[in-house]
Amino acid sequence: MTENNAKMAGSAGAAADVSDLDRRYSFHPFTMLAEHERSGPPLVISRGSGVHLEDVTGRRFIDAMAGLWCVNVGYGRDELANAMRDQAATLSYCHAFSSMASDMPAVLSARLIEMAPSAASSPMSKVFFGNSGSDANDTQVKLVWYYNNVLGRPQKKKIIARSRGYHGVTVMSAGMTGLPGLHAGFDLPLPHILHTTAPHRLWEGHGMSDEAFTAKLVDDLEQLIAREGADTIGAMIMEPVMGAGGVIVPPRGYYAAIQDVLARHDILLIADEVICGFGRLGHMFGCDALDIRPDLITVAKGLTSAYYPLSGCIVSEPVWETIVKGGEHYGAFGHGYTYTAHPIAAATALANLDLIASENMVERAGAMGAYLHERLADAFDDHPLVGEIRGFGLIGAVEFVARRDTPRAFDPALKVAPRIVAAMIERGVISRALPNADTIAFSPPFIIGKREIDAVVHAARDAADSVMQDLESAGAWSRPASVT
Amino acid sequence: MTENNAKMAGSAGAAADVSDLDRRYSFHPFTMLAEHERSGPPLVISRGSGVHLEDVTGRRFIDAMAGLWCVNVGYGRDELANAMRDQAATLSYCHAFSSMASDMPAVLSARLIEMAPSAASSPMSKVFFGNSGSDANDTQVKLVWYYNNVLGRPQKKKIIARSRGYHGVTVMSAGMTGLPGLHAGFDLPLPHILHTTAPHRLWEGHGMSDEAFTAKLVDDLEQLIAREGADTIGAMIMEPVMGAGGVIVPPRGYYAAIQDVLARHDILLIADEVICGFGRLGHMFGCDALDIRPDLITVAKGLTSAYYPLSGCIVSEPVWETIVKGGEHYGAFGHGYTYTAHPIAAATALANLDLIASENMVERAGAMGAYLHERLADAFDDHPLVGEIRGFGLIGAVEFVARRDTPRAFDPALKVAPRIVAAMIERGVISRALPNADTIAFSPPFIIGKREIDAVVHAARDAADSVMQDLESAGAWSRPASVT
Repeated sequence: MTENNAKMAGSAGAAADVSDLDRRYSFHPFTMLAEHERSGPPLVISRGSGVHLEDVTGRRFIDAMAGLWCVNVGYGRDELANAMRDQAATLSYCHAFSSMASDMPAVLSARLIEMAPSAASSPMSKVFFGNSGSDANDTQVKLVWYYNNVLGRPQKKKIIARSRGYHGVTVMSAGMTGLPGLHAGFDLPLPHILHTTAPHRLWEGHGMSDEAFTAKLVDDLEQLIAREGADTIGAMIMEPVMGAGGVIVPPRGYYAAIQDVLARHDILLIADEVICGFGRLGHMFGCDALDIRPDLITVAKGLTSAYYPLSGCIVSEPVWETIVKGGEHYGAFGHGYTYTAHPIAAATALANLDLIASENMVERAGAMGAYLHERLADAFDDHPLVGEIRGFGLIGAVEFVARRDTPRAFDPALKVAPRIVAAMIERGVISRALPNADTIAFSPPFIIGKREIDAVVHAARDAADSVMQDLESAGAWSRPASVT
Repeated sequence: MTENNAKMAGSAGAAADVSDLDRRYSFHPFTMLAEHERSGPPLVISRGSGVHLEDVTGRRFIDAMAGLWCVNVGYGRDELANAMRDQAATLSYCHAFSSMASDMPAVLSARLIEMAPSAASSPMSKVFFGNSGSDANDTQVKLVWYYNNVLGRPQKKKIIARSRGYHGVTVMSAGMTGLPGLHAGFDLPLPHILHTTAPHRLWEGHGMSDEAFTAKLVDDLEQLIAREGADTIGAMIMEPVMGAGGVIVPPRGYYAAIQDVLARHDILLIADEVICGFGRLGHMFGCDALDIRPDLITVAKGLTSAYYPLSGCIVSEPVWETIVKGGEHYGAFGHGYTYTAHPIAAATALANLDLIASENMVERAGAMGAYLHERLADAFDDHPLVGEIRGFGLIGAVEFVARRDTPRAFDPALKVAPRIVAAMIERGVISRALPNADTIAFSPPFIIGKREIDAVVHAARDAADSVMQDLESAGAWSRPASVT
């Protein structure tokens, strides 16, 4: 960093300057741009350590979201910082085009195949690296299309995703994402993409048994397939537990039943493990936790705990063999990123996987997750605004509703969840309001302790109460008669 | 790294093991997969320093491609390795969703806007960060679509690219790439994409004056626009000097004429500076070198010299204002990557830009480029296989043909350029055979010296001679009568 950069970025006194640079020159993702241009960023973060973030004015926060569901081993781990430095000094870049290889990605590929969940009929075979979950899911679509071309089924190309599924933001992956905020203004989704019902009990299966709700979801999928024709559908993509769309855990029996449908129609299953993978659910993969046997797996975020951009498409043996066969007709496989198989990315991932193993972090995520769910239940079970508390392992959410018995959502204009999240920040905790609902999420680093979970849940309850009082005072919400 | 990883990756004795791991578990980009599965990688690189790479068996190479046109400051620079380590220890991750900010990306945005080329009528305004040139160009398409929706022109969405242009590999950006090897088997390009003629003198304008060739290219573009309707076309994307498609430098007058056409039809110009940006042409940007005034600029590769994945979409003021206005209708701008505005990426870029400035690397690239072109001319001007020697700044190419006077390409099955590149590797130099031609490329790190350039060019000439002799012996090529 130059002295000049240091002057601008380093000292608390220059906080206003950095904030102004951000306001003037940064194009923020998923942001109200006009408001940002007027007011600048509410927080400018400059330090992170363990589960804590600190802003340029010295305020300190527990990051209850691990960034965006990704900083699983916590901030500022020397093991990862040093692995990056050492690998940069040893081999700072190497491509993998035209059969060229470097050592670290080969070692990481082997390790991922060894640990990956199995497909229905075979183990996983190969790993294709990229930079982000978005590009990996975009690659998965290209793999499915190529696969079906090689098999002589050029019509079998549509992709089924689920409403509220989150699969990224490229033109293709934003289309698969089942959230209207990613489609409006962008002419998405492209016509290749179909959405089926989210396994979201609060809104799609209120009061149903697991069996009845699963039967309804399976029926919706069957009807979609019948309408479009199974011979036009190449794959279905699913997050084991849906993340950004609402932290949605399907009913018991759901994956077994869905997989039966897909197998019957020869539709490939892509498991999007971007959030679940590498321990988030208290199992190494979401597929392990929920008994999913995919043909293709997408990994990202937790693979490096977000220290370095890295994604992977893990491909099962039958898919691999078909793609290899495609070379007879199409020649060299015509896809790949400059940073596919980056040696620093691979070294960072290896150090991260070492840390997860040596500190038993998968078990720890399971144990801390159980504690989080206990505390959320204690704090919110009887709360008049709460429609559902849900989660699995170290991921959780609380959804707020205007009415509990027959669930009714708040008017989105009230911005209930964003206000709760803002009130949590005032109380020293960073959470996140999820889109198209009044849901706040919890997905802390695996190294979080019980006292920190207590502080997170306390801040959430306190913030919710404060927002409830404001709504009541403003006449925007009234306390049901049965609640005193 | 665990002991086990070290055992697998670290020692020359284990070279065969790593090579086998790669063969068994890695899915290589742009590779003949069946051949790779049989034979494994020809090279497994494990070290890099300056302009040199070293493989696991201890063989040493000059990397005449700077990886994939990206390791501009050279391998193993402590300044970058330490910047990454220090930033990882200070703040290893922060997202930029929902107006959240961190210090380093704000500082980098400001610096990029300060140095960026201007649009036709205004300076550049904001920077949107991603991970790769592919995702940045995918984002550019989304920006163009959004922009025209906000302006109430929902039909103005098609993107013109050029044959042989290289713009990445997502479903959208691979479509913009004008190379058949990226389309076959993948059902690309999508119908939103149109291709116009490459400004490739050898095949499209042989023997023409600059004026005549420019007039032909402009006429081709005008005809395409007239055929499709200007009101259906949102943008045209161009690399100032085309890279992977052949190192193609347009004729004099080309960009002025093309920009007139685009302005007349209200078509945005996206400058893809992924290869040219940050000094490759001996100017900070390709737009500076060739007098291009774009509405949107894509940067990647050289921004971090490939030490860390980072891309940017640089947006001009009128485009920015329109996108901001879109929020009134569409709400929060619904696009962004987990690693958009990653603090380690920004710190790495800042350290890289510092290094480029403090070592006068842009000037140096210009000077070394001039020397490279002199030496290539000396070595290849009279070579019976050479159809064209071309380049600009520190990027160059030699295209081999079966016949020089009235150019005729070799039968692709002869694999002339791949064989020359393989022969160069035997001689200790890594180059690259470009697709759909027999072109070998030169794009070394900016820190290369004259003696190393001599070695690169000598290896290339020697390799070409050796392949020519093999072709002659095999009866696959015969020396023209005029050449002794």
